[in-house]
Amino acid sequence: MAQKVSLEVAFGKVVRRRRREIGVSQEKLAEKADLHRTYVSQIERGLKSPSLKALVAVARALNTRPSQLLGEMEEELDGV
Amino acid sequence: MAQKVSLEVAFGKVVRRRRREIGVSQEKLAEKADLHRTYVSQIERGLKSPSLKALVAVARALNTRPSQLLGEMEEELDGV
Repeated sequence: MAQKVSLEVAFGKVVRRRRREIGVSQEKLAEKADLHRTYVSQIERGLKSPSLKALVAVARALNTRPSQLLGEMEEELDGV
Repeated sequence: MAQKVSLEVAFGKVVRRRRREIGVSQEKLAEKADLHRTYVSQIERGLKSPSLKALVAVARALNTRPSQLLGEMEEELDGV
């Protein structure tokens, strides 16, 4: 039976994938998004449910749109 | 000169519009999303930056996708 993937885990996976695709470190992403490095790390590991503000800051720092990140998160959730 | 609309205000506007389109009260939305009515009211007025968890719960209670709500939020922000 498929494991239930939490929203946070699916979102974190999308952020990490996108970050690696564009070749940016966690430190650099945190700096660009004006967020603490620990918070970014927690988001990527699915340990935090980011606020709308943080979600948008992360999307911008990844040169993408918030709706794009959530669309990919939905695919992760549907795909399990 | 155009006023800067905050993320939270743009998101709240999208939620309120969608809620009215489908003819649901704030109380009913809060109940369906398993959120406190006061919190839903604060989100609609742009006073709170909802967590990813709350954002997804609201989208589901509005019979739509989180990415759809954020896409409409982006249109609100671009359109100013």
